[in-house]
Amino acid sequence: MTKPEALSNMPAKNTIPGFYGRFVHGEQSTLAFWEITAGSVSPQHQHPHEQITYIAEGIFEMEMNGTKYMMQQHDVLVIPPNVPHGGRAVEDCKIIDSFSPPRDDYR
Amino acid sequence: MTKPEALSNMPAKNTIPGFYGRFVHGEQSTLAFWEITAGSVSPQHQHPHEQITYIAEGIFEMEMNGTKYMMQQHDVLVIPPNVPHGGRAVEDCKIIDSFSPPRDDYR
Repeated sequence: MTKPEALSNMPAKNTIPGFYGRFVHGEQSTLAFWEITAGSVSPQHQHPHEQITYIAEGIFEMEMNGTKYMMQQHDVLVIPPNVPHGGRAVEDCKIIDSFSPPRDDYR
Repeated sequence: MTKPEALSNMPAKNTIPGFYGRFVHGEQSTLAFWEITAGSVSPQHQHPHEQITYIAEGIFEMEMNGTKYMMQQHDVLVIPPNVPHGGRAVEDCKIIDSFSPPRDDYR
C-alpha cells in the first residue's frame, strides 16, 4: 500500500467462525480490523507477536493468562508476546488489533 | 498495562496545537488515539518508526512524500520508516496510529 485505501474496498477474511478481519500490513507491524458476531469464540492461543487490542464497539470477554476481563467499548489492552489469550464476543463487536512483528500468517 | 484500561481514564497529551493523543505502549509497538481539532496542522516530519494510520472519524488531508491525499473516514495508510509526512484536519478528526517500534518519545 503506497497510498490511502478504503477499508471497505479490502476483502474481509473469515479466519475462524464469526471472526471477519481486514488486515493492513507493513514491514514491521499489522493493523487488523475485526467484525465479530455476538457469541463467537476465539479459543485460547498464543503467538510471538505483541498485540494491542482496542474495543471500537461492543463487549468482548477477554481471557488472558487465565484471568477473564469484560472489555467494554473504548477499552484497550496490551497482550505481550507468547501470552495465552482468547475470548468471546458478548455483543457484536468491532475490534482493532495492532501486531508487531506483522502477522504474515494473515497476508 | 497488565489488564484492560478505559481510554477515557488515560490523560490526553497535547503534543502540538490541536492534537490530543492517548498512547498505549507495548515493548515493540505503540497504539495512539488522536483527537484533532479542525484546521490543525501537523508539519511535515519523519521518524524511524513504521506508522499505520486509520481515520476513525473526520477528513484529514495527508501529505506523504510530497503527494497530498484527502483521507476520508475508514481510510488506512502505511507510512514506512523515515518517509516525510504531515497533514491538516479538514474536519474534527479521530485518528488511530500504530507505530513500531514504540514511540518512546510519547511515553
